[in-house]
Amino acid sequence: MRFLRIGPAGAERPALLLSADAEAAYDLSEVTPDIDGSFLATLGPERRADLAARAEAGEFPRLPLAGARIGAPVARPGKVVCIGLNYRDHAAETGQAIPAEPVVFMKASDTVVGPYDEVLIPRGSAKTDWEVELAVVIGARARYLDSVEAADAVIAGYSISNDVSEREWQLERGGTWDKGKSCETFNPLGPWLVTADEVADPQALALRLSVNGEPRQDGSTANMIFDVRYVIWYLSQFMVLEPGDVVNTGTPAGVAMGTPGQPWLQPGDVMELSIDGLGAQRLPVGKA
Amino acid sequence: MRFLRIGPAGAERPALLLSADAEAAYDLSEVTPDIDGSFLATLGPERRADLAARAEAGEFPRLPLAGARIGAPVARPGKVVCIGLNYRDHAAETGQAIPAEPVVFMKASDTVVGPYDEVLIPRGSAKTDWEVELAVVIGARARYLDSVEAADAVIAGYSISNDVSEREWQLERGGTWDKGKSCETFNPLGPWLVTADEVADPQALALRLSVNGEPRQDGSTANMIFDVRYVIWYLSQFMVLEPGDVVNTGTPAGVAMGTPGQPWLQPGDVMELSIDGLGAQRLPVGKA
Repeated sequence: MRFLRIGPAGAERPALLLSADAEAAYDLSEVTPDIDGSFLATLGPERRADLAARAEAGEFPRLPLAGARIGAPVARPGKVVCIGLNYRDHAAETGQAIPAEPVVFMKASDTVVGPYDEVLIPRGSAKTDWEVELAVVIGARARYLDSVEAADAVIAGYSISNDVSEREWQLERGGTWDKGKSCETFNPLGPWLVTADEVADPQALALRLSVNGEPRQDGSTANMIFDVRYVIWYLSQFMVLEPGDVVNTGTPAGVAMGTPGQPWLQPGDVMELSIDGLGAQRLPVGKA
Repeated sequence: MRFLRIGPAGAERPALLLSADAEAAYDLSEVTPDIDGSFLATLGPERRADLAARAEAGEFPRLPLAGARIGAPVARPGKVVCIGLNYRDHAAETGQAIPAEPVVFMKASDTVVGPYDEVLIPRGSAKTDWEVELAVVIGARARYLDSVEAADAVIAGYSISNDVSEREWQLERGGTWDKGKSCETFNPLGPWLVTADEVADPQALALRLSVNGEPRQDGSTANMIFDVRYVIWYLSQFMVLEPGDVVNTGTPAGVAMGTPGQPWLQPGDVMELSIDGLGAQRLPVGKA
C-alpha cells in the first residue's frame, strides 16, 4: 500500500495509491487530516485492508495525479535522524574509516520537501552534493528495543530520501556535520510511503541517482554496513523514535565529493533518484 | 510578559503570568490552543498590551500555580538548534580550542520537558552531564538575515535550557555530537518564556546551576564568544529558523566533564538552574 500527499506545499491532502502505476489516488481526507505520526500509529494490517477495500469500492474521492503537485509522504516529521558512512564504498570515497558503530547525525525536519520540488543551492555554497538513501518511516514508538528483530514492529514503511549536503559547511567549518545538512529544501522525500508489508526485503533494493541524465550513484541496500533493523534498534538505545519520525539510512558511493572533478550541483541541474519499488524523484536545482 | 504552559504532560494549557512572583497565571485557552510557533508569530507589542489589559481586567480564568505542573513554555519546538563551546571558560575546561565561528549541532525536539520534570539518565550511561544555557525562542521567520541587528526582530523571547549531555556518547562513540544530545528528557526548558521586551540586555545575565545544593556553574552571558544576535544571524545563513524554534546558546564553565573528579549525574541528584529574570528550574534525576 502506498500513501502520498497531494496538493500545494502546506495544503497537501492525504491520499492512498492502490498500485504504483495508477493514474489516480484516493483522497483520505475523511479518514485522517494528514499522513502523520498519529495516522501511521493506527496503520496495522486490518486498517490497511479496510482502507484498500473502501478505496476499491469507490468510497473515497479520486485525486488525479496528472499535473498535481506531490508533497513529501509524511507531514512534517518530528525528527529526521541520519546514519553517516553506512556503505563501505561511500566511506572509502570520502576518505573516512569504516565506522565501528553507526554514525548518527540530525537534519532539521523543516528541510523535508516533495519529490519533484526545487532543491535550492544555499547562498554562498560552493559544494552542494546529493545522496540517495533508503528512508525508514517510523510507525510505533521505539524506546530501548529489546532486540534487533523488534525493529520490524516499529517500521511503518519506506520511502526515498535525498540527504542533500553542503560539504564545505559539513566538514570544513568547525563543528559537527549538522551545519551542512539542514539548509532549506535539503531533504526531498517521496514520492510515496510504501508500507513495510510491500517491501519483501529492505536489504535487497537497488538505489540510483543521476544528474542531468548522467548516472552518479548505483548501489544496493545489500551493501549497508549496518542494516535497517540494526540501525533502528541502535537508535532506540540513544533516543526515542516516535511515529512519523524519519530515519535516513546512509548513501552508497557516487556523490560529487567522491567523483573525479567533484561535479557539485549547479543551478539548472536536474537530479533523478529511484529505489526499487519505492518510485522516483525528479528534482530541479535552483538558487536560494 | 511571561508565558508558560500549565497542566499534565501533553495536555498543558497556555497561560500568561503578569509578574514573576504572581501566585496565579491566566488561562489563555480562549486566545490560542497553545504557546507555539503560530501564537508566537502574532506576538507584537499591541497583542502583548491587549493580552495584559484583558488579564488585568479579569477576562481570563485564573490558574493557580501551587501544586500545578509546569510544562516547557513552548509546545514541541520545530527544531532545537544548539551552539557548542560558546564560552571561553567552557571550551578551556573541555580541552577544546576557542572556535573561529559558531559550532552548530541539533537536539531532537522531543527531548524538551518541563522545568521541574524528572531528567532520566539513559540506560548504559556512565557520563550524563548538565549545561545551563540561555535559550532563545524564535518568533518570526529568519532566512538569510541581512545584518546582525536584524536578529532582534525574530526573537520572541528567552528562557532557561538545560542542554543535558551524555559525554561518552557525544565524544567517544564515533560520530557527531548528536548521539549524546538527544536522549529522552535531555532538554528541560522553562519555567517561562520571557518576552524580549522584558530582557533589557541578554548579554548581561548571570546563569547558575547547582547539583544537590553544590554550586557548579556560575557564569554570565557577557562572556559568550558569539553573542545572541550574532548567533541568530549566523544560523540564518545555514538554515531557516521558524517561529517556535529554540536556540540553545552554549554553556559556561562548570560542567561535570570539566570538574575535578568528574561528578557525573546520579539517580537521586537534584539540579537547580537559574538565569537572571528568567526564573528557575529544579530537576530531580532518575533512571530510564
